[in-house]
Amino acid sequence: PHVPYSAMRYPEETMVERSKEFYRLLNQRRTVRSISPEPVPREVIDNVILTAGTAPSGAHTEPWTFVVVSDPEMKHQIRQIVEEEEEVNYRQRMGDKWVKDLAKLRTNWIKDYLDVAPYLILIFKQTYGILPNNKKKTHYYNEISVSIASGILLAALQNVGLVTVTSTPLNCGPQLRLLLKRPANEKLLMLLPVGYPAPDATVPELERKPLEDIVVHI
Amino acid sequence: PHVPYSAMRYPEETMVERSKEFYRLLNQRRTVRSISPEPVPREVIDNVILTAGTAPSGAHTEPWTFVVVSDPEMKHQIRQIVEEEEEVNYRQRMGDKWVKDLAKLRTNWIKDYLDVAPYLILIFKQTYGILPNNKKKTHYYNEISVSIASGILLAALQNVGLVTVTSTPLNCGPQLRLLLKRPANEKLLMLLPVGYPAPDATVPELERKPLEDIVVHI
Ligand SMILES: Cc1cc2nc3c(=O)[nH]c(=O)nc-3n(C[C@H](O)[C@H](O)[C@H](O)COP(=O)(O)O)c2cc1C
Ligand SMILES: Cc1cc2nc3c(=O)[nH]c(=O)nc-3n(C[C@H](O)[C@H](O)[C@H](O)COP(=O)(O)O)c2cc1C
Repeated sequence: PHVPYSAMRYPEETMVERSKEFYRLLNQRRTVRSISPEPVPREVIDNVILTAGTAPSGAHTEPWTFVVVSDPEMKHQIRQIVEEEEEVNYRQRMGDKWVKDLAKLRTNWIKDYLDVAPYLILIFKQTYGILPNNKKKTHYYNEISVSIASGILLAALQNVGLVTVTSTPLNCGPQLRLLLKRPANEKLLMLLPVGYPAPDATVPELERKPLEDIVVHI
Repeated sequence: PHVPYSAMRYPEETMVERSKEFYRLLNQRRTVRSISPEPVPREVIDNVILTAGTAPSGAHTEPWTFVVVSDPEMKHQIRQIVEEEEEVNYRQRMGDKWVKDLAKLRTNWIKDYLDVAPYLILIFKQTYGILPNNKKKTHYYNEISVSIASGILLAALQNVGLVTVTSTPLNCGPQLRLLLKRPANEKLLMLLPVGYPAPDATVPELERKPLEDIVVHI
């Protein structure tokens, strides 16, 4: 069945003001690689994940699972898996070009934040679903849907003053899936350490492209 | 060079309140397939796209181009390309299963909104970049980055009371790229008609998964 839909209708000046306000808020988002160990209310994390779960998805499959890790021992095991693979990525797998492209970010394979951040959110995409009759259900565009949900999650984190490192841990997916006991239809898409920024946090001084470099009006 | 980073720091109750508020706002988002022809201020569209452009991207490649089409003739040409391909998708390419999965949404290959919506935003991912010396620059994870940016764009639209249809027009990419004169490194990822909802708009009565079905705490 279909139901009527109506949206909030704002006067034009209010729309312009709200669009500017939201841009200002999100333009302050940065990837912050020094995260404070201070605790963060779990209710906030749950609300941020509920918000991500409002994302659209191909044929309404909602193909996402958010695994939130706060157990220190589990965080440490995750760190060990990620650092081991990342060291290989930096030293061998990815070649000089990749390492050079990342140099300005000063990233390397040491990821303190995986121990330190109060939460690690591991975002899995469900590549297919299981129907009540045990048949597989196709999840159209699952990676795009889960990435859209992750974008909404990043906006929700920014809205409450929390920071993260958007990361796609290369080659760690299978090991982390087994460690976290996720089923075979789930594949790791992203790993987000979440917390307040450390008081001495710094970020690379990057610029964002101006509007005219990203938009074309026709 | 690196620069200090500090974020807004809210008291815990404020964080909880803000996280609820944002969830309430985004939980009202729906894919709305009846869009009103009323004009929408272009400044709002520009701000929404600026906001999308604050997304993180692999190695800060910012691999996105937003083509905003308001010209009626161009919108109509886009509609013709999309409907032609979609009719083949529904009738032949995708098989009964896909058509059945979509039945509850009552979608078909007729897309009035492509003529009617005041704006069509076509989101392209840049699969590689071009350096000043004309060499290709790898865009790591470009599809994930652009999908994250699209998630932020959807949040920004919802924040101003506009609606859209998140869509990934199957098999239309090459034709639309040529029509819009985009370079060969750009591939169409999404097409979003944008406007106010039509006064008589209806949406399928869908439920979203409850928190316990999408989150696992460890
Ligand atoms: C990647 C992706 C592709 C989609 N493609 C289409 C599409 O081609 N046509 C359409 O009408 N809706 C499309 N949708 C919208 C979904 O059907 C919609 O998000 C889902 O039914 C949930 O409804 P809601 O967005 O109102 O919560 C798509 C959504 C996503 C995320
Ligand atoms: C798909 C994706 C993968 C990323 N992977 C990593 C990563 O593995 N490690 C890291 O430190 N940053 C990673 N980043 C963060 C980017 O380096 C960062 O977004 C970019 O440099 C822009 O900086 P900003 O987020 O502060 O605007 C990733 C971002 C995206 C979108």
